[in-house]
Amino acid sequence: MSIVAVGSVAFDTIATPSGRVDSVLGGSATYFALAASYFTEVRMVAVVGEDFAVEHEEVFEKHGIDTRGIERAKGKTFRWGGHYLENLNEAKTDFTELNVFERFQPHIPPEYMDSEFLFLGNINPSLQAAVRQEMEHVRLTGGDTMNFWIQRTRAELIETLKLINVLLINDTEAGMLAGERNLPRAARKVLAMGPQALVVKHGEYGATIFFREGAFGIGRHPFRAPALPIEEVKDPTGAGDSFAGGFMGYIASQGQLNREVLKRALFYGGVMGSFAVERFGTERLQSLTREEIDSRFQVFRELTHLE
Amino acid sequence: MSIVAVGSVAFDTIATPSGRVDSVLGGSATYFALAASYFTEVRMVAVVGEDFAVEHEEVFEKHGIDTRGIERAKGKTFRWGGHYLENLNEAKTDFTELNVFERFQPHIPPEYMDSEFLFLGNINPSLQAAVRQEMEHVRLTGGDTMNFWIQRTRAELIETLKLINVLLINDTEAGMLAGERNLPRAARKVLAMGPQALVVKHGEYGATIFFREGAFGIGRHPFRAPALPIEEVKDPTGAGDSFAGGFMGYIASQGQLNREVLKRALFYGGVMGSFAVERFGTERLQSLTREEIDSRFQVFRELTHLE
Repeated sequence: MSIVAVGSVAFDTIATPSGRVDSVLGGSATYFALAASYFTEVRMVAVVGEDFAVEHEEVFEKHGIDTRGIERAKGKTFRWGGHYLENLNEAKTDFTELNVFERFQPHIPPEYMDSEFLFLGNINPSLQAAVRQEMEHVRLTGGDTMNFWIQRTRAELIETLKLINVLLINDTEAGMLAGERNLPRAARKVLAMGPQALVVKHGEYGATIFFREGAFGIGRHPFRAPALPIEEVKDPTGAGDSFAGGFMGYIASQGQLNREVLKRALFYGGVMGSFAVERFGTERLQSLTREEIDSRFQVFRELTHLE
Repeated sequence: MSIVAVGSVAFDTIATPSGRVDSVLGGSATYFALAASYFTEVRMVAVVGEDFAVEHEEVFEKHGIDTRGIERAKGKTFRWGGHYLENLNEAKTDFTELNVFERFQPHIPPEYMDSEFLFLGNINPSLQAAVRQEMEHVRLTGGDTMNFWIQRTRAELIETLKLINVLLINDTEAGMLAGERNLPRAARKVLAMGPQALVVKHGEYGATIFFREGAFGIGRHPFRAPALPIEEVKDPTGAGDSFAGGFMGYIASQGQLNREVLKRALFYGGVMGSFAVERFGTERLQSLTREEIDSRFQVFRELTHLE
């Protein structure tokens, strides 16, 4: 089943201890769409500028990604520059040129309206809410947010959380949103704001999914997917969006919405995140096969599997 | 099979956001011995002062722990005071009175000499090496260390690592010992120093065991045990030593030394660490049943188990 992905398309300039790339295709919707495209049909909603060329378009076309929702605006595409030092968990921003992204108003093409799955990437929560309300046939909405929105537009975010079924954020964001450092207590507070499930990403330590009582079936405990320790992290950019793409893409590919599906999705999220960081930009995500993905899924399973 | 535990016995004064206790029984050998006592016969080697009373002795006796290797010296027992703020991962030391522990020279009673398992708690690496060399029948030695020894007595520690089969340290210590922040690369460097296996503890995210190639059987990948997210961490003191006690105690209780045993031991380590932090000091470790332990082991398994 198809999933609509709303977010940014950008050109990234990235430096890490392993090297440097200039103006490569990036952005949250790009990483998400490429990762999800190995599981299901993806439909993008984003905005690009006049510098978005045929070669960029082709990256999406090769993966069967629907780009009819990518608006071409006058001006330049969103550009971001950043670098990572020894601590690969922390990006230092060198520059942000919002360009056409500054006035981004997501327009959902009529052809997308039958989609049953939706992912709201990290954009202004009011825009997220507007998209969700426009799409009548959605069965499951995943959403992302970040510190900026938690601090600057808290009231709007709280409203939007009522429309999101599964929120995907990291430890720091969960702590900030809940005003509570302890992870399970923070999760309880976030779930009380609306979502039926909360995925907290722990970077190299994997991710945990917490369920609201009774949501997606029964069970008392959260669930954890580990992450494989990786020797060569070339570029962490997009790891979180790739995680979300694997997670949501797998869910959309399944008929049922139950805990077992969400648990497996959590593993697939970790798998796609682990591929993303192996090369710069989206390079690795562009060249995968489903066999490679399922083979790493098995490695992730065995990582914590007792006989 | 019996395990000899060498380390400290102390009286701890601890303050956390959940409360405060004064001069309660603690120390690395104490936490280790209590945790391991649920799995196997434990024999302690430590030193205490004249303030070590019958009531303290009884804590060990109730758990069938052999205390013939606890030396009674003139003076006071090692005392430590510390507190934790919101970040429960980081202890702030208020005072350290080494007292009789300052001149601790481990003496192994002749009755302990047939033990096949040994745990060298966090003491001077030269003392650790001396104990190991004295004990001729040991099949497996586990060891701990800390930043202080890594920085101050690096040469001695490097020698001691050649005598340790399984080293148990945390992320920060692994990074410092290897001079390398990336976890799998750091693990490879540490394993090249001597140990056949390295356990890296990640606090609330569980632990990973790395194997030297061919050690304890075959396999290409490390193994991870998750940790259950805990709502009420009353007192993190002793969590690492309790982890080591569960890990080594389970291994000593098994006849064979293979990867499957070490993997299960990693889960039992996490289980004992999770109990330790639920109450102040050793309170929870004193009152457990094997049924409670195995029930939590099941919860830990299910935490990452896919159908």
